[in-house]
Amino acid sequence: MPDIHKLLWPRSVAIIGASSDTRGLRGRIVQIMKDHPYQSAIYPVSRSEAEVQGLKAYKSVSELPPTDLAALIIPAKFVPQELERCGAAGIKAAIILSSGFAEEKGEAGPALQQEIKAIAARYDMAVSGPNGEGFANTAAALCPTFSPAMDAGDVPLLPPDRGRGQVAVISQSGGMGFAFFDHGRPKDLSFRYIVTTGNEACLEASDFAEYIIDESKTDVILMLIEDIKNIATFERMAEKALRAGRPLIINRLGASEAGARAIAAHTAAHGDDAVYRALFRKYGIIESNDLDEMVDIAAAFIAMGKRLPASHRVAIASSSGGGGAWVADACALAGLDMPILDDATRAKIDAYLPPYGCSQNPVDVTAQAIHERGYAEFAKLAAESPNVDGVILVVTGRHPRFLIEDRDHLIALGRDTKKPVLLWSYTRPASVCVDLLSEAGLPLFTNVHNCARTMRVMADYRAARETFLKGH
Amino acid sequence: MPDIHKLLWPRSVAIIGASSDTRGLRGRIVQIMKDHPYQSAIYPVSRSEAEVQGLKAYKSVSELPPTDLAALIIPAKFVPQELERCGAAGIKAAIILSSGFAEEKGEAGPALQQEIKAIAARYDMAVSGPNGEGFANTAAALCPTFSPAMDAGDVPLLPPDRGRGQVAVISQSGGMGFAFFDHGRPKDLSFRYIVTTGNEACLEASDFAEYIIDESKTDVILMLIEDIKNIATFERMAEKALRAGRPLIINRLGASEAGARAIAAHTAAHGDDAVYRALFRKYGIIESNDLDEMVDIAAAFIAMGKRLPASHRVAIASSSGGGGAWVADACALAGLDMPILDDATRAKIDAYLPPYGCSQNPVDVTAQAIHERGYAEFAKLAAESPNVDGVILVVTGRHPRFLIEDRDHLIALGRDTKKPVLLWSYTRPASVCVDLLSEAGLPLFTNVHNCARTMRVMADYRAARETFLKGH
Repeated sequence: MPDIHKLLWPRSVAIIGASSDTRGLRGRIVQIMKDHPYQSAIYPVSRSEAEVQGLKAYKSVSELPPTDLAALIIPAKFVPQELERCGAAGIKAAIILSSGFAEEKGEAGPALQQEIKAIAARYDMAVSGPNGEGFANTAAALCPTFSPAMDAGDVPLLPPDRGRGQVAVISQSGGMGFAFFDHGRPKDLSFRYIVTTGNEACLEASDFAEYIIDESKTDVILMLIEDIKNIATFERMAEKALRAGRPLIINRLGASEAGARAIAAHTAAHGDDAVYRALFRKYGIIESNDLDEMVDIAAAFIAMGKRLPASHRVAIASSSGGGGAWVADACALAGLDMPILDDATRAKIDAYLPPYGCSQNPVDVTAQAIHERGYAEFAKLAAESPNVDGVILVVTGRHPRFLIEDRDHLIALGRDTKKPVLLWSYTRPASVCVDLLSEAGLPLFTNVHNCARTMRVMADYRAARETFLKGH
Repeated sequence: MPDIHKLLWPRSVAIIGASSDTRGLRGRIVQIMKDHPYQSAIYPVSRSEAEVQGLKAYKSVSELPPTDLAALIIPAKFVPQELERCGAAGIKAAIILSSGFAEEKGEAGPALQQEIKAIAARYDMAVSGPNGEGFANTAAALCPTFSPAMDAGDVPLLPPDRGRGQVAVISQSGGMGFAFFDHGRPKDLSFRYIVTTGNEACLEASDFAEYIIDESKTDVILMLIEDIKNIATFERMAEKALRAGRPLIINRLGASEAGARAIAAHTAAHGDDAVYRALFRKYGIIESNDLDEMVDIAAAFIAMGKRLPASHRVAIASSSGGGGAWVADACALAGLDMPILDDATRAKIDAYLPPYGCSQNPVDVTAQAIHERGYAEFAKLAAESPNVDGVILVVTGRHPRFLIEDRDHLIALGRDTKKPVLLWSYTRPASVCVDLLSEAGLPLFTNVHNCARTMRVMADYRAARETFLKGH
């Protein structure tokens, strides 16, 4: 069995096709790797340059010191012979970033892909790609990819460690795979791995997912897949994930006719949507076809951990009456129920409301009561109602004063609540509010439907898992 | 007929209940008004203060110099007597920001609202509210509201004038009304008015919309309504808007049971969803229940003007194969068609693609071809196909180089294209890219479904308008 650990955690990486020209992809990969504080060796392999971006270059794979991982970024037709050399040199893992294989029109590309597969099998190499965009291992600061999303900048790869969980991304598409990372960063979402798998001639998404689940350091996995090549691996992986309570959030591209045409041209993928759907249902997999929503769902699972709604019944508390109505409509569309709160809870809430407020559900807290008592108190009171199993709190994060003044209560709420509390800000939140709520562990949504849908899928995931565990 | 012009374009404004305490709403409204360069007179009315935030204050309405507009922000029970004084003093317009009227439990609030209605009728006053949050007239820099979204900051109320159109917002909910403005600003969307109408005791959203359409300076109107009190006014307004080609984009809150409960508590609204839906269909009104999407649709109409798709057939061109597939799935969900492009167009595109690219539709341009020829060329070529009437171009706006190098072509594309071109960036766009595309007049989406849905509603709007004009 090929060793994925060697691929994701190499102690040395050769870049075959490395270049000094940082305007091209072959130079970009070296630049991105170098700019991160990866502690192990990087060996450029170049036929024309003795030094690449300040690193000693090697003329050939056969001249390399012992190497764990080879990243190949050379024209497709040269890939088999170089991969063969890697195998012969004892390199046990490779990623192939070149295009021009099974996705190409004609017979030459698919034939090259068959060759790769045979070589990998012969040497028992862990091979990802071809037509991938590499990967990132943030803990190792290792980014063998040319994705602009992985440029080393002012923002560290990992957000402040707040002792919460991490997510991984596995995507056939390179551009989209790193896009998840790009969208998750402003939410302080901590990514452990971003793996792009391209055409999946050898290793496929399920293989990486299984490795990541077995490793037990990743709490949520985001997957963008075009097809599933080995259903048995997928099922084994999905069952492990469900047992371990590590949600899989998947978009399968190609559900539409034009989308199917696109994935066939992209990674030579084709698959039966109905088969996939049935698999996803069986293993409580969360399906979403919206990038922003997928990241939002992941962030909410990370923040709430095991605190998932026991039913579809939610309370809404809002400083804006219109905002409360908007969430109510969104929750109804998401299939959530909003029962009127019980009398005891209503009495407690009413004690704080002006006469034009309303405690039914949605709770129209009114701006006045928020000014007087802050946001957290009302979410806490609503969560105490036996009629509901989750709370959506509507805030405006634009003017930070009310959130800042309520800081201690918000932190206590995020720590102590037993029912999930999700926040929707109907204005663009100030960065100080984003940071504060991130610290409090309260998931902040800027899109109302993502907020409602997340509550729904959290409830469904809990139910699916409980049903599965009971049956097995 | 009450004079809305006096309300929206007053030469002097009295603030009844003005205060020096800027932590309270009665102080905030004065502060916000003062901080903007409104050129006309502001008259605080205060029983307790001789000067409010540096402005001479008046003890009573009866002492005021001639005044066009009164903003009332005093406890509900005092509103009728002060409004009566305004009428007696010859003030022809008022906005009532106080709460505690028909939305309040019991009989007192609704009775107060009836009094307001009677006084307004007796003096033929243009009265907006109660329970509203005021309005903004950006051209006059007039912001009689306490909405934090209207705080004067470093960003001017109006973006750079690029000779494109403007939008208006009319919303019963104050918080949500100004949220549209807040969301539109980073898109350089130019807002002419934001009007919040609250309980609509007298003037309702349709009245303001009709004024704005008659004025002919606003191209798109965003509306958030809870009910329609006067169907005849709404129909007259909607017909004018459709004839003039000024799209109305509406969310009607309260479609769900809990939402209906919420709007009844919020503005005492109730209405029959089926009746509203039928009206919206009749007048080509664009319905959306997503704030981000509504703003995105408005921005696209402003950018594209009369260049609306003649059918549901679109071409997709993408630098990311996975991104192209994702848009294709989204377009299919939105009810768009993606026919394979004609041979002549494909031949022109193929001439620029590497062998692993694909010109069918979606066009998988590949990163390599984008590096060589830029983005604009492929959108232009795809738009030339007789098989499609619109183009979605998938870009990554994170790394600005390719967009910056393509700047002149993008500007030419935005100016010259006859078919709409919408852009989706699957990474968070750099601000330099946002500015560049705004200058080019190419609508940039960060959510794929909003992009696809916008193309769809643009086509539907064109078709609805053509059908209506033919039948009348």
